[in-house]
Amino acid sequence: MSRFLNEKYKALKEYVPGEQPKDMKYVKLNTNESPFPPSEGVVNAVNRENAELLRLYPDPDCSELCEKLAGLFGFEKENVFVSNGSDDILNFAFMAFCSDGETPVVFPDISYGFYKVYADLHKADYQQIPLKADFSICADDYVGVGKNVVIANPNAPTGLTLSLDEIERIVASNPENIVLIDEAYVDFGARSCIGLVPKYDNLIVVRTFSKSYSLAGARLGFAIASKEIIADLNKIKFSTNPYNINRISLIAGCRAIEENSYYMNNCKLIAKTRRRVTEELRRIGFEVLDSEANFIFARTAEMDGETLYLELKKRGVLVRHFTVERIKDFNRITIGTDDEMNVFLREVKTILGKA
Amino acid sequence: MSRFLNEKYKALKEYVPGEQPKDMKYVKLNTNESPFPPSEGVVNAVNRENAELLRLYPDPDCSELCEKLAGLFGFEKENVFVSNGSDDILNFAFMAFCSDGETPVVFPDISYGFYKVYADLHKADYQQIPLKADFSICADDYVGVGKNVVIANPNAPTGLTLSLDEIERIVASNPENIVLIDEAYVDFGARSCIGLVPKYDNLIVVRTFSKSYSLAGARLGFAIASKEIIADLNKIKFSTNPYNINRISLIAGCRAIEENSYYMNNCKLIAKTRRRVTEELRRIGFEVLDSEANFIFARTAEMDGETLYLELKKRGVLVRHFTVERIKDFNRITIGTDDEMNVFLREVKTILGKA
Repeated sequence: MSRFLNEKYKALKEYVPGEQPKDMKYVKLNTNESPFPPSEGVVNAVNRENAELLRLYPDPDCSELCEKLAGLFGFEKENVFVSNGSDDILNFAFMAFCSDGETPVVFPDISYGFYKVYADLHKADYQQIPLKADFSICADDYVGVGKNVVIANPNAPTGLTLSLDEIERIVASNPENIVLIDEAYVDFGARSCIGLVPKYDNLIVVRTFSKSYSLAGARLGFAIASKEIIADLNKIKFSTNPYNINRISLIAGCRAIEENSYYMNNCKLIAKTRRRVTEELRRIGFEVLDSEANFIFARTAEMDGETLYLELKKRGVLVRHFTVERIKDFNRITIGTDDEMNVFLREVKTILGKA
Repeated sequence: MSRFLNEKYKALKEYVPGEQPKDMKYVKLNTNESPFPPSEGVVNAVNRENAELLRLYPDPDCSELCEKLAGLFGFEKENVFVSNGSDDILNFAFMAFCSDGETPVVFPDISYGFYKVYADLHKADYQQIPLKADFSICADDYVGVGKNVVIANPNAPTGLTLSLDEIERIVASNPENIVLIDEAYVDFGARSCIGLVPKYDNLIVVRTFSKSYSLAGARLGFAIASKEIIADLNKIKFSTNPYNINRISLIAGCRAIEENSYYMNNCKLIAKTRRRVTEELRRIGFEVLDSEANFIFARTAEMDGETLYLELKKRGVLVRHFTVERIKDFNRITIGTDDEMNVFLREVKTILGKA
């Protein structure tokens, strides 16, 4: 820390991303990436011609991609915001709607760890609402809460979902507040609430190309909301970094939307593998939450979470362990290919003496 | 604007980027892009293999690129910060060192328009110091000012520079404050102050790949400063968007640094064209400031700036006009290829009846 840093950031604890090993020697099941490559159109767009055009700035309005997304979901372009990963959008949303404690915000105690970082960064007046004993979100805790609400659905790292009815009850009962639903993992089995946007001007749905669209490395996220909310997000974007998405990622996003069925099919394959791995782990005594995401959250009474994580790492399999007290017995395991998951299952069984 | 937007942002005026026409029919001299394509190594890295790896997150530490930049400038990796364009870094710096009026900041009244936007966004206590009558920065206005200082060198949109001695006087005389020197255009002829970093722990030098490295579309910027200042910038980055640079841009940046001489040679070609266009414009009665950037700033008594801009646009040549009172007679003209500049000169002469 320098002696110049603003007082308000001195105690700030930044987010700690999952390990990104540089040697690629691991079966990497720790950051919820897709095991499938991007679709042909995306791969083909990463070519010489577009490389040479890198000398030019990208379109700061992201018009083509906004139009494609609007078309896919049945909105107008002005209902769509595109930014440099969904983290970028979450940051802007906390900034625009929750900063300096002007409007309090609530989110679950166990959820995407970045919500708390954004709340701290922007000096939000926030409260973390405990999950139920079974690690699910209690919708009633948020109904009529009279504060901004941020919920990941499916939630991370549990993978558990709220129903569309529960989401609607939360949105409808807090008309004077923003309800942000982070649907980073929705394509793997949960129901999206994007269809509620025309009905509720306080709903923001945030999505990412990082998981279901195999584009974690391209940094693309988007939000669907009322035109007024989208205008607010654009105001923040154009006041921080208008050219915040590179040219190739914008093109990749367009091609990906054109090839949507490839990705939706991959999601089905991942869901199928998830069900198989869930069953297999349960068979050998694990408690596995009912995930509808591209990861599972599991613990066993036979070994604490951190030891299992370290033993797996030693054997070349990376999963994600969180040191947070309430979930420290668990590991979050990304669903990779069937082959990768076979390696994972084999190593787990070896470690627990069940091979 | 939505009814939910935080009070503090309601009056915020966002930055207005230069036009980015989507039809590419213009001779585009309005956003200071390079007329030269990226180097071979960069173009070759935009390939199928790296496209397929887009399914994986990028390295949030940008280790390889930081090491290459450290090597190029003779620093350690911990003295280098890489982010999603230099705008991103300027934003983080205003946030980290100037927010909420804790430490006042000064910058020239005529400079990169985004400084004022960042100052407003982060509620900085700021003062804009007028340029001298000849549009140069008066170094003495900043010597011992006892506030944070932000200066673009060369300045934009004038292209005028401060000497290394003047920069050092400013840095040395404000030891309790940050001095940020924005060297976006330094490679086109000015002297960099990066060499002062080891001597002064209050100096931040900000650079971009967008101009001299032909990578405006890749979104890459970097900063060189003390390890403590770099740690502060990383704290903000990891609290907002740790994965803020896409994989292909990171690779492109590494290849570009390896091929540094290609870019430095391009800068010489651009400087040569700049001198020729400057002379030619002066010959037909323009006042042209002594630019050391990849653009020139020029006015003629025969036509007001906006009319000339509009007439050029009609004829397929885009330049940048600013409506700011003090400089409204000028246009900022990016230096393109010799062919592009010949088109520009021909059209200017036609418009002014000097063909």
